[in-house]
Amino acid sequence: MPQLTPNSSNSITLRLYMPHQSSVLAKVIDAVGIAEGFLSAATLVEKNSSHVVWDVTVDAASEAHAQAIVLAIKELPETEVLSVQDCTFELHRQGKISVESKHPIENKDQLSMAYTPGVGRVCSAIANDKTKVFDYTIKSHTVAVISDGSAVLGLGNIGPEAAIPVMEGKAMIFKAFAGLDAFPICLDTQDVEAIIQTVQYLAPVFGGINLEDISAPRCFEIEDRLKELLDIPVMHDDQHGTAVVTLAAMLNALKIVNKKLEDLKIVFTGVGAAGVACTKILLQAGVKNIIGCDTAGAIYKGREHNMNATKILYSELTNPHGEQGTIQEVIKGADVFVGLSGPGTVSLEDIQNMAEQRIVFAMANPIPEILPELAGPHVAVMATGRSDYPNQINNALAYPGIFKGALNCKARTITEAMKMAAAQALADLISPEELCPHYIIPSVFDPRVVPAVAWAVEQAAQKAGVAKTI
Amino acid sequence: MPQLTPNSSNSITLRLYMPHQSSVLAKVIDAVGIAEGFLSAATLVEKNSSHVVWDVTVDAASEAHAQAIVLAIKELPETEVLSVQDCTFELHRQGKISVESKHPIENKDQLSMAYTPGVGRVCSAIANDKTKVFDYTIKSHTVAVISDGSAVLGLGNIGPEAAIPVMEGKAMIFKAFAGLDAFPICLDTQDVEAIIQTVQYLAPVFGGINLEDISAPRCFEIEDRLKELLDIPVMHDDQHGTAVVTLAAMLNALKIVNKKLEDLKIVFTGVGAAGVACTKILLQAGVKNIIGCDTAGAIYKGREHNMNATKILYSELTNPHGEQGTIQEVIKGADVFVGLSGPGTVSLEDIQNMAEQRIVFAMANPIPEILPELAGPHVAVMATGRSDYPNQINNALAYPGIFKGALNCKARTITEAMKMAAAQALADLISPEELCPHYIIPSVFDPRVVPAVAWAVEQAAQKAGVAKTI
Repeated sequence: MPQLTPNSSNSITLRLYMPHQSSVLAKVIDAVGIAEGFLSAATLVEKNSSHVVWDVTVDAASEAHAQAIVLAIKELPETEVLSVQDCTFELHRQGKISVESKHPIENKDQLSMAYTPGVGRVCSAIANDKTKVFDYTIKSHTVAVISDGSAVLGLGNIGPEAAIPVMEGKAMIFKAFAGLDAFPICLDTQDVEAIIQTVQYLAPVFGGINLEDISAPRCFEIEDRLKELLDIPVMHDDQHGTAVVTLAAMLNALKIVNKKLEDLKIVFTGVGAAGVACTKILLQAGVKNIIGCDTAGAIYKGREHNMNATKILYSELTNPHGEQGTIQEVIKGADVFVGLSGPGTVSLEDIQNMAEQRIVFAMANPIPEILPELAGPHVAVMATGRSDYPNQINNALAYPGIFKGALNCKARTITEAMKMAAAQALADLISPEELCPHYIIPSVFDPRVVPAVAWAVEQAAQKAGVAKTI
Repeated sequence: MPQLTPNSSNSITLRLYMPHQSSVLAKVIDAVGIAEGFLSAATLVEKNSSHVVWDVTVDAASEAHAQAIVLAIKELPETEVLSVQDCTFELHRQGKISVESKHPIENKDQLSMAYTPGVGRVCSAIANDKTKVFDYTIKSHTVAVISDGSAVLGLGNIGPEAAIPVMEGKAMIFKAFAGLDAFPICLDTQDVEAIIQTVQYLAPVFGGINLEDISAPRCFEIEDRLKELLDIPVMHDDQHGTAVVTLAAMLNALKIVNKKLEDLKIVFTGVGAAGVACTKILLQAGVKNIIGCDTAGAIYKGREHNMNATKILYSELTNPHGEQGTIQEVIKGADVFVGLSGPGTVSLEDIQNMAEQRIVFAMANPIPEILPELAGPHVAVMATGRSDYPNQINNALAYPGIFKGALNCKARTITEAMKMAAAQALADLISPEELCPHYIIPSVFDPRVVPAVAWAVEQAAQKAGVAKTI
């Protein structure tokens, strides 16, 4: 595994018992530094005349690194390690979301309005006019985050239970960034027909369907079919969220290197859900020459080994010069590398073989194809999928605003134009004065992001005639 | 429709513009009283030297009654009605629940712990040991409230969208009373196999399944099959919630009339989900003579008209003397009437034909079989399903505590013994000193209810060996 920078995702909190002398704490802090940990908090928990208890939080680069730091502290003669907590696991304990009532139920009057008998009149009103479900239930602002656990982050097919923490995380992001309510649904089936059927059956309570972490090529059929079957927006975020943000980042990166979409040679690694969608949106935006690579190298029209229906279609749309060979071969002279595969698929030498003013989007999660520490000094613009480096190509820049805009106008679907509008709105948030190699895409914490994306999406929906409200 | 007492479920708020003289407001209040409305709030909204704006909230007995009250106020010459809001509909606007984050996402550190890259380690931990899903996701405290909208309250088959307000209400009750998180799932199918399959597929994120408002006899098969398929508690609340609370109320009502379960003649109207479950739990508790009636009258062994598989089974278990005839005939001499049907199925004369010290549980919702205003003076104990009368046989007394107890010990299922224990715990909450005809069952607002039920259920689960934790 490549060496990573210590970060909060691998932070630990050590509870330490030590003599009441500042020199002892200083030794702990020294030990953390020597072990290459990063001290991020120290809180006094308890003290008496002779001893103190400190909670010391340390960022590490990995679980193994965290263990090494603990060992280093355990070796200090005066300090006793009372406990070690993994901060990330503690944050996840008992889950990260809750379902809350918007109104109290503290007396009979409140109960007879929120529940029987009062609720019966509301039910009848919806039964008589089904559009009222948007007025008197959570539907208008509630998104299902649905996965089958078949392609979770970079972890692969880990199943529905293990996927839940990711889907809860998305629900948190929907709330924090867009004020939308989202609920995780992790399905105990990976059968395409069963998934389509199940999502169709559970749609009534939801205003939108965010498909998530479903493996390719199954995800394409599931999304396409559900878009046809349902009259609420359905979006597979791994495809389109990634594509929208990638296009936005690309538009701005090109301003820095002063190149044009139509002149680019872009090489992809990974032609799964995200790779295909990113390729499509870039083609739609005007790129002419994209070469996708899988483990067998460049995909070209007529390639016979390691193909499937998705790749055949991909070969029709891309690689106009029919380049063949390994990624190491086809990346030579490329203007842009887009990685949506896994760590280690390109080396520094490969990057150095690209054209001048090269752009690298190494988006594999959690570990990029090549680390910014390594490639960064050798490229004009570098972006990753991680929140702990600059230029994060983060889906969270897209999906909260896209769903917000779509739900605002009760859009029946999410069109290509709505996604393009979202990408343009995102890119436009960075002013010419602000734009620089380390700042091509806004932060997910930029409060302008969701309103801008939502507004652009809503306008595009109105224009396309897919909005139900004026 | 029978005349009901004004109550908050039919309350309206009128915004009134009037001269700044107390005599004008007095006239409004008079008009409300003359129209038989019940004033429940008056709030000054605005004033200037000549005029005032008041929000006046009035309980009515029905929507029609509310309209009559508005008309009466509109006739007052000095008062202008600016707007009228239906308080119940306003409470339901945009739904009654929300999904909230338990932790803030306000910076990169928080995001990289709650989401990528940190979340990946938690996912991997669950993938390696699936039981950790109870530790690091919402599963351990989250219940799905699932309906197909086929038998909603007394409204019948109104479909999944119209059922949502009820399921949201249940989620509120789970939260308010048991601190559990619950989420409404309303299915767009009424096919038994499809429902079973769908619930099975969406089970991973949930710790328990509360089936709700699914019509009989489909509900029996759905519940039975899901109990076999899933290793988390599944309970159809309309059956067992009602049954548990009915048994609890019965145990206490019998103390008042000094009768014993085994000596009773109980007549039921309604042999749907709740009727069958109440019959079964009462038989299990020791009652010998229960006669169920449907629209064709008493159900007896060998009856040939208007039968189905459920009623044939019912006829085997009940009516030991083979009584035949209409409800009017078989209710004669009965000690207890249990109504789980609809308004108007018994008359006052029918009630008066029962045995002395008669008990009436008229539980149809929203309108009881016979109203307490009418029957109350002629019976020893009267109970309904409504929150606006005394002795509410309210499922909410049972299901929050039953699920709480079952989830506390990670019970694989909910057994008969767990339900009996819940009923006994509920009945025992009323001390001999407190017990009286108007107080046979605790209020859902009694803070002792959920802990007592949950404890009893957990003990019974441990005893039965269905708990996963010690």
